[in-house]
Amino acid sequence: MVDDRHSTGAALFEQVSGGNPADLLGDLAAISPDLAAMVNDFAFGEIYARPGLDLKQRWLVTIAGLTALGHSQPQLKAHIRNGLNVGLSREEITEAILQMAVYAGFPACINAMMTAGEVFADHDLLPKEEA
Amino acid sequence: MVDDRHSTGAALFEQVSGGNPADLLGDLAAISPDLAAMVNDFAFGEIYARPGLDLKQRWLVTIAGLTALGHSQPQLKAHIRNGLNVGLSREEITEAILQMAVYAGFPACINAMMTAGEVFADHDLLPKEEA
Amino acid sequence: MVDDRHSTGAALFEQVSGGNPADLLGDLAAISPDLAAMVNDFAFGEIYARPGLDLKQRWLVTIAGLTALGHSQPQLKAHIRNGLNVGLSREEITEAILQMAVYAGFPACINAMMTAGEVFADHDLLPKEEA
Amino acid sequence: MVDDRHSTGAALFEQVSGGNPADLLGDLAAISPDLAAMVNDFAFGEIYARPGLDLKQRWLVTIAGLTALGHSQPQLKAHIRNGLNVGLSREEITEAILQMAVYAGFPACINAMMTAGEVFADHDLLPKEEA
Amino acid sequence: MVDDRHSTGAALFEQVSGGNPADLLGDLAAISPDLAAMVNDFAFGEIYARPGLDLKQRWLVTIAGLTALGHSQPQLKAHIRNGLNVGLSREEITEAILQMAVYAGFPACINAMMTAGEVFADHDLLPKEEA
Amino acid sequence: MVDDRHSTGAALFEQVSGGNPADLLGDLAAISPDLAAMVNDFAFGEIYARPGLDLKQRWLVTIAGLTALGHSQPQLKAHIRNGLNVGLSREEITEAILQMAVYAGFPACINAMMTAGEVFADHDLLPKEEA
Repeated sequence: MVDDRHSTGAALFEQVSGGNPADLLGDLAAISPDLAAMVNDFAFGEIYARPGLDLKQRWLVTIAGLTALGHSQPQLKAHIRNGLNVGLSREEITEAILQMAVYAGFPACINAMMTAGEVFADHDLLPKEEA
Repeated sequence: MVDDRHSTGAALFEQVSGGNPADLLGDLAAISPDLAAMVNDFAFGEIYARPGLDLKQRWLVTIAGLTALGHSQPQLKAHIRNGLNVGLSREEITEAILQMAVYAGFPACINAMMTAGEVFADHDLLPKEEA
Repeated sequence: MVDDRHSTGAALFEQVSGGNPADLLGDLAAISPDLAAMVNDFAFGEIYARPGLDLKQRWLVTIAGLTALGHSQPQLKAHIRNGLNVGLSREEITEAILQMAVYAGFPACINAMMTAGEVFADHDLLPKEEA
Repeated sequence: MVDDRHSTGAALFEQVSGGNPADLLGDLAAISPDLAAMVNDFAFGEIYARPGLDLKQRWLVTIAGLTALGHSQPQLKAHIRNGLNVGLSREEITEAILQMAVYAGFPACINAMMTAGEVFADHDLLPKEEA
Repeated sequence: MVDDRHSTGAALFEQVSGGNPADLLGDLAAISPDLAAMVNDFAFGEIYARPGLDLKQRWLVTIAGLTALGHSQPQLKAHIRNGLNVGLSREEITEAILQMAVYAGFPACINAMMTAGEVFADHDLLPKEEA
Repeated sequence: MVDDRHSTGAALFEQVSGGNPADLLGDLAAISPDLAAMVNDFAFGEIYARPGLDLKQRWLVTIAGLTALGHSQPQLKAHIRNGLNVGLSREEITEAILQMAVYAGFPACINAMMTAGEVFADHDLLPKEEA
């Protein structure tokens, strides 16, 4: 029997990752299965599953926060992918990142935009004439 | 004659601050009028005025980013006020802050929530039984 | 009926705070009762309650991390108090803070040391000839 | 007998602080005399005393770095004072701070500028019509 | 017709990058042409083009700030190159980075120094007996 | 004749790095021999050599601080290795990292855990069924 947080988190994690949760956690479960479980149970099962914001709003918030932090490109990359999966448009994502230039400075903003570019290229979302 | 950025920024600044732009900038113009002008022209006139996100989304993004940064309570306070002015609910604001616990840690999240509490108290938005 | 995490967390929180949990959370419960509950359930009930490190080691780790972050003096102050309550000596605490000068720079280290000084003064732990 | 670093640092500290080294360290020596000594011996005696940059350049560098860090207003305030003492003009200081808007974002920049404003007010350096 | 900021920025960008602006922006223009334009117009056209500091001082300030931030090696690398182009010596650059050990800690300082080493190696500026 | 700090630092550096100090400093000495010397003399000779904490405590503190900083994986990797050399167990190290999720957020914690995983793999410390 699993507790609520765990199954709620796992279902949401599966949904937003397009069936590919390994994108976010990689080999983490091999090194610290407890930390991997906390991401599922706490981040997805307790936080993202809350009412008050819809999933598009929640991923906009996450993309903004990770851009501002500046030091977590692997997580930012996975969450930009998740953001597309919950329905954010390419433009909503790039606007959220661009706005962070005001608050966290241009380098954090540029590095996040380059990371977004990698995700968009994987999803064939870069304009033909640009990519 | 003022350029476009300046007038666009000033109009938006006035709108979102509920007619009280001094909340964000305080005495800044006395120390560096050029920096105060850049906030108006660049942040408001160039960034916030862009299409792609509506004002509610833009302030959600800003509140998330400032919470993650952790060191800018005066700006966070002013932008939580601005967020209420553009139509964010108390719940949307607290959810965006709470979600940052996952990405920036609990202290940054708690300090931002206390700042939100000050704004809500000023606006008489704390539940009677809680405040 | 409360779940395990909650009661485990509450018992530990009570123990390490010397019966004074409000020192850490202040008015947080009035603004976001859910966030206050997460500190109890997640931080205390899930993390601090884990085996693998004893309580003295756990608070040494927390004091080091908060010193390195640099932007969370209220939490640092409460956890220095908690550190004394779980048995850390004044010297262990100041050495952990001082070592962070190497990794986070002198300003973060000095500000944390000043915060430690406030706690030591409250506990009458400053040398008579110094304080 | 004191070692070289100590006397070199003390002489430089005295010089740049306008005879007022307590501005930078406050009560630190009462809490951790070793940390206060390291600021003197390492920061002033080993780093600032090096050739390769003159004192004006060194304080410009320090003001920029502290502005970017964002969480150390007491140290920034003291070093803006020291910067004036080694010959930086008000304009050089505000330009260095303003430039950090590009790299660390506007909030860190604005908060540093407000801190500079406090120092300039103390030194009667604010334009009459502005202050 | 381009506005003043744009042409001023483009001319300065060209000058300081030794004719190689792509070093700073890479593929950014393909992902977000607006962000790339803001770097040109705002950072170069509005900030770097201001009076009050000469170009050597401005790049010393930027190198210090990026070292303190710690998370933006690509930008730091490009700006160390730009710093050499505006006339900073290898020694001025390494001294500015080294001084940041005091404020941002040794890891940020060491990582920045390693990045400087890459630029110096590209420019054949490492002492023969050392490289 | 070397001063005390230097020989104390070199002996400790040698001891904790398992005879492999290059792990921490890499090619740094070729770019800035003075900075490499300061790591030896200041970090090892002045800070780590102090009484008040034993070596296991000191490396726990360092691993926590570097995890919280989030931007210094090369230094974190070397110090996790040093931590094993001074007697920290794999579990003590992963618990210190995991606890930082509370204070610095999950991304900084996850990235540090992945770095720990690399060190454990090098030392054949990952459970057979997991690695």
